[in-house]
Amino acid sequence: MIPYCSICWDVDKVKLLDQRRLPAEELYLEITDYHEVIDAIRTLAIRGAPAIGVAAAMGAALGALSLDTADGKEFQSRFQVICREIAAARPTAVNLFWALDRVLLVAQAHKAESVEAIKGHLVAEAQTMLKEDETINRRMAQAGQVLIREGHRVLTHCNTGALATGAYGTALGVLRAAWEAGKRFSVWVDETRPLLQGARLTTWELGKLGIPYTLIPDGAAATLMHQGKVDLVILGADRIAANGDTANKIGTYSVAVLAHHHGIPFYVAAPLSTFDFTIPDGNHIPVEERAPEEVTHLWGQAVAPAGAQALNLAFDVTPNELIAGIITEKGIMEPPFASSLKPYRPGQS
Amino acid sequence: MIPYCSICWDVDKVKLLDQRRLPAEELYLEITDYHEVIDAIRTLAIRGAPAIGVAAAMGAALGALSLDTADGKEFQSRFQVICREIAAARPTAVNLFWALDRVLLVAQAHKAESVEAIKGHLVAEAQTMLKEDETINRRMAQAGQVLIREGHRVLTHCNTGALATGAYGTALGVLRAAWEAGKRFSVWVDETRPLLQGARLTTWELGKLGIPYTLIPDGAAATLMHQGKVDLVILGADRIAANGDTANKIGTYSVAVLAHHHGIPFYVAAPLSTFDFTIPDGNHIPVEERAPEEVTHLWGQAVAPAGAQALNLAFDVTPNELIAGIITEKGIMEPPFASSLKPYRPGQS
Repeated sequence: MIPYCSICWDVDKVKLLDQRRLPAEELYLEITDYHEVIDAIRTLAIRGAPAIGVAAAMGAALGALSLDTADGKEFQSRFQVICREIAAARPTAVNLFWALDRVLLVAQAHKAESVEAIKGHLVAEAQTMLKEDETINRRMAQAGQVLIREGHRVLTHCNTGALATGAYGTALGVLRAAWEAGKRFSVWVDETRPLLQGARLTTWELGKLGIPYTLIPDGAAATLMHQGKVDLVILGADRIAANGDTANKIGTYSVAVLAHHHGIPFYVAAPLSTFDFTIPDGNHIPVEERAPEEVTHLWGQAVAPAGAQALNLAFDVTPNELIAGIITEKGIMEPPFASSLKPYRPGQS
Repeated sequence: MIPYCSICWDVDKVKLLDQRRLPAEELYLEITDYHEVIDAIRTLAIRGAPAIGVAAAMGAALGALSLDTADGKEFQSRFQVICREIAAARPTAVNLFWALDRVLLVAQAHKAESVEAIKGHLVAEAQTMLKEDETINRRMAQAGQVLIREGHRVLTHCNTGALATGAYGTALGVLRAAWEAGKRFSVWVDETRPLLQGARLTTWELGKLGIPYTLIPDGAAATLMHQGKVDLVILGADRIAANGDTANKIGTYSVAVLAHHHGIPFYVAAPLSTFDFTIPDGNHIPVEERAPEEVTHLWGQAVAPAGAQALNLAFDVTPNELIAGIITEKGIMEPPFASSLKPYRPGQS
């Protein structure tokens, strides 16, 4: 139905849709060297927390396949080095570390087996994680779609569709499920500067889904809210602290404050793999600062004078008080999040 | 000291800096046909409410010069048509209509004189308005610069410098006066999508003034406020209603709500010619909607899929409750604005 995928495993290589070239061109990269997966994550050929998680697992599998040793101990140690390299690709999205922890556990769990067998387990695990991501997203979408009502005008920020995940999407998955359930509504798409994931990717995905949307500059969201033209905000997350504080694409906190001021419910959609229960609150989330050229240039052309000083924070952190609910594969978590999330902390059951 | 001007009169033509090409190129247009002035206003070769006012007056003078009649009545009637044409260039900035009303009054006041003499008065009036604009801006800047303290981090939106005015600037003029008074501070420059007047023009002007700045995407202002890194907001206006409600570049209302949420004072700097006392509040300000291509394309290159629906509101309206003060050439007006502005309503003295 959706004739594209963000990432998949193909025999012995990773195929991923190069999102830097969208919407102008649908080009799939075919990668056999895990260094190129790191590069793809770093340069945003693939982005979105859940998609980064899957890419990390597949990159680790490629790395494992490249190890030319039959010695189990040497394999484990070199595999750990590879995972550490991949982990350094980007700092904020916790799914990256979650995915690598998971493949490291798989390697450990099978350490008594042959290196070849372990490689097989790692390749299988990466593919399992991709399938699981779709299942989780579909559950999340079903849980969240009850929030969307006929005629709603929903505002979203950045991209949270199939492109940002293994498949189906998080916040955009919720919209997709509502649409598939027959509800008719429309979407305000924040263009999401500096890298325009809203303008380039979300519009592209909504167009393929047939969901009506209107693209706006990020600065226009407030006046639409003031005019009563926004009923609901729903967007994704890159890392959520134990208290519900949420790191997401720069501009998210702005939308959250504006929604709060106008009495508009603000929802986050994210799988449990995006939660970081090791940190109590958002102050502990490292926020990636990217190259200023992403702000001062667009496709290599300067939008500012030569030598212009610019700050390019890739994410911001929204305090939990501004969040009406967090949609997960286990249902919609409501405030206070420390309590509603408690059953899902690792070690609880 | 500042080796550029937004607009000037040169014997029998208008010279204006083509702001569409900044910062890449400093190109001056030389215009003798008033239709080209209308085109320059419409396509934003010249923009900023006070600069539009001066351009309108100079365009009207060019139009007057082009009238090949010695008959006073015919001249007046054709001159009125020209002024109506110029008035249709853009709908929001009230300085456009203010300037045209003023030149129409000049033409009327001298109606007993020869057509040649009236043409001379109109050319002189346009030049007077340019000079007055600088005087007014310098007064406004002196009145406002007391708000800037050593070490302040000031956030601004869009462009309000010499480029947006006849000379010196409004909000940027306030910063310039503070800098010239020896205060040292820095500026956060909102890039101001979609047309990037912050990225392209404000950085360029601050660079020439030697005032340190950092360019940010519009969506990043909120998180800087949350981090305590913004002490003050100061920006311009395109039209201010009798109660202080202020229309300005899209994104301004967003900044106002965010500043309010974080307890940061939000100031507007505008000459009295930007006030429209004929309307009681901001609901009566017509907001220009420009071509969606300004959002979906940048320099002719698409940033969104072909056929993407986009909304391009050029302005928004900030309710007076969010404004700490309005800096004018008569001093800083404080809330409630209906009272503080009363002495400056036409017909009061």
